Amino acid sequence: MKITVLSGGVGGARFTRGLRELADAQITVIANTGDDMWLHGVRVCPDLDTLMYTLGGAVHEEQGWGRRDESRRVSDDLQAYGLGWEWFTLGDLDLATHLARTELLRDGLPLSQVTARLAERWQPGVTLLPMTDDEVETHVVVADGRTMHFEEWWVRHRAALPATRFVQTHVETARPAPGVLEAIAHADVVVIPPSNPVVSVGTILAVPGIRDALRATPAPVVGISPVIGGAPVRGMADACLAAIGVETTARAVAEHYGRRPDGILDAWLVDRRDSDAVPALEAAGFVARAVDTLMTDVPTTARIATDALALVGR
Amino acid sequence: MKITVLSGGVGGARFTRGLRELADAQITVIANTGDDMWLHGVRVCPDLDTLMYTLGGAVHEEQGWGRRDESRRVSDDLQAYGLGWEWFTLGDLDLATHLARTELLRDGLPLSQVTARLAERWQPGVTLLPMTDDEVETHVVVADGRTMHFEEWWVRHRAALPATRFVQTHVETARPAPGVLEAIAHADVVVIPPSNPVVSVGTILAVPGIRDALRATPAPVVGISPVIGGAPVRGMADACLAAIGVETTARAVAEHYGRRPDGILDAWLVDRRDSDAVPALEAAGFVARAVDTLMTDVPTTARIATDALALVGR
Repeated sequence: MKITVLSGGVGGARFTRGLRELADAQITVIANTGDDMWLHGVRVCPDLDTLMYTLGGAVHEEQGWGRRDESRRVSDDLQAYGLGWEWFTLGDLDLATHLARTELLRDGLPLSQVTARLAERWQPGVTLLPMTDDEVETHVVVADGRTMHFEEWWVRHRAALPATRFVQTHVETARPAPGVLEAIAHADVVVIPPSNPVVSVGTILAVPGIRDALRATPAPVVGISPVIGGAPVRGMADACLAAIGVETTARAVAEHYGRRPDGILDAWLVDRRDSDAVPALEAAGFVARAVDTLMTDVPTTARIATDALALVGR
Repeated sequence: MKITVLSGGVGGARFTRGLRELADAQITVIANTGDDMWLHGVRVCPDLDTLMYTLGGAVHEEQGWGRRDESRRVSDDLQAYGLGWEWFTLGDLDLATHLARTELLRDGLPLSQVTARLAERWQPGVTLLPMTDDEVETHVVVADGRTMHFEEWWVRHRAALPATRFVQTHVETARPAPGVLEAIAHADVVVIPPSNPVVSVGTILAVPGIRDALRATPAPVVGISPVIGGAPVRGMADACLAAIGVETTARAVAEHYGRRPDGILDAWLVDRRDSDAVPALEAAGFVARAVDTLMTDVPTTARIATDALALVGR
């Protein structure tokens, strides 16, 4: 069964690790690259790396991102030049990935080919695609009018500066990476994992052509709510939802994505704590169900993935 | 006293560390940048770094280059991607320097300003100038016709592939970095330390304008032979000299540099083992003297520097 996943970092990576347990799953992951940035002249791709490390068995499990057994020799020495970014962790092992990527990019390879090359080492067991080979970065406009890179807002300011708007730089001219539209059009099922609906999935949807492909695909599209009991499962997605005027509830997120063909979803899996949203979702035309959706370990996550697919008869 | 030094890496750095001990020495070092290269997307400047670390007290003393207490976490992990250069050591601490430099270069600063910025940390006690802000790289043409970067020939092949020629890429359009010509014109004395005459000093001299400045300066120019008893003190300079048809003797190197105003030297300090070269050098118009020139420690090196300056009455 061909399954296509639109993923951000930690949440999407953990979900996909569970999904991968299903028999006969041929998975393609379309990853958000809006968090990518140039840092000290190297290209950092947070979500692609989290996916690669998580699916490759190298992730720092408790942290959810970055490498196990990481160190910061380079980063500490950069600080001594007065040039380090104190709020951004640049681990030594992680840096090797950035350097490898940067070298291949500078050799002229597009990010999708670079990603495939790096994934050869990690054998993630899925096809990993960036949403686009073009440089699209999510910037945040905050209340005082300043604009900053999403990572600065998220990591440095812990999403505490009220955001008024998210801007995807150059997204209007970005093209989906090779294989992205095909993976949506030819899937047996498309899954929106519990990733950030605004800056992860929302950024992928902002690449021209991707939203239309989701509307048009014959495959059903099922999502898993990243909101449980009125709070994001992880991270600070509520700050992002607030900025675009969406309530932090399982139901509001589904309505934000919208029901096909105008929206992108057919079905929405919510947590048992949000079971009272199910009738309203069904009344609005979604296929909906409430189960335990906390991805506590890989077998549990595989069960959640099974529940999600069952919702659309897969 | 204003002293200007034309330097390669280890030999020039160690000499300058001794020279710096002299009272009232205001030293400007013009460094070879022909060994520079892009490696994994970062700019590596071997000679500038060796100078900076040696004069900043951070060098790996036994090795002569690189940082003390170095590690290779990033480099080892790059190998795991199949992308490492097995023959080139990229230490973690050294990498911080390359990343800092690369970031500043990509911000648009010329190498001379980047070098000044990095030197703020190390306080080398001298003004450190790259020979040029332009990218000039020494490439080596070997007997079978292949061309490779000097570092590949030197480090990977240990200079064992017979070289037929050295090429400085784009040198014809390179301009001396700001301050270089002034440092030569307004010096009280110019010193050629025991650096490689072909690929270190020779590369500096290949930058248009520098050789003419040395011919024209009112300051005397004194050199210290990098050859002792028919062999280079350090490194494989004999392989470089052979490629350009110069014998590996103290006298031949002096004659290769030539006597001003056609050449660039007034005086030449040789080792006691080469004292028989002194009369011939004197007959050829050089001021010459034989002393112990092995730079065994900083006080000894300071004494050698004193001997060199005394040779030209400074």
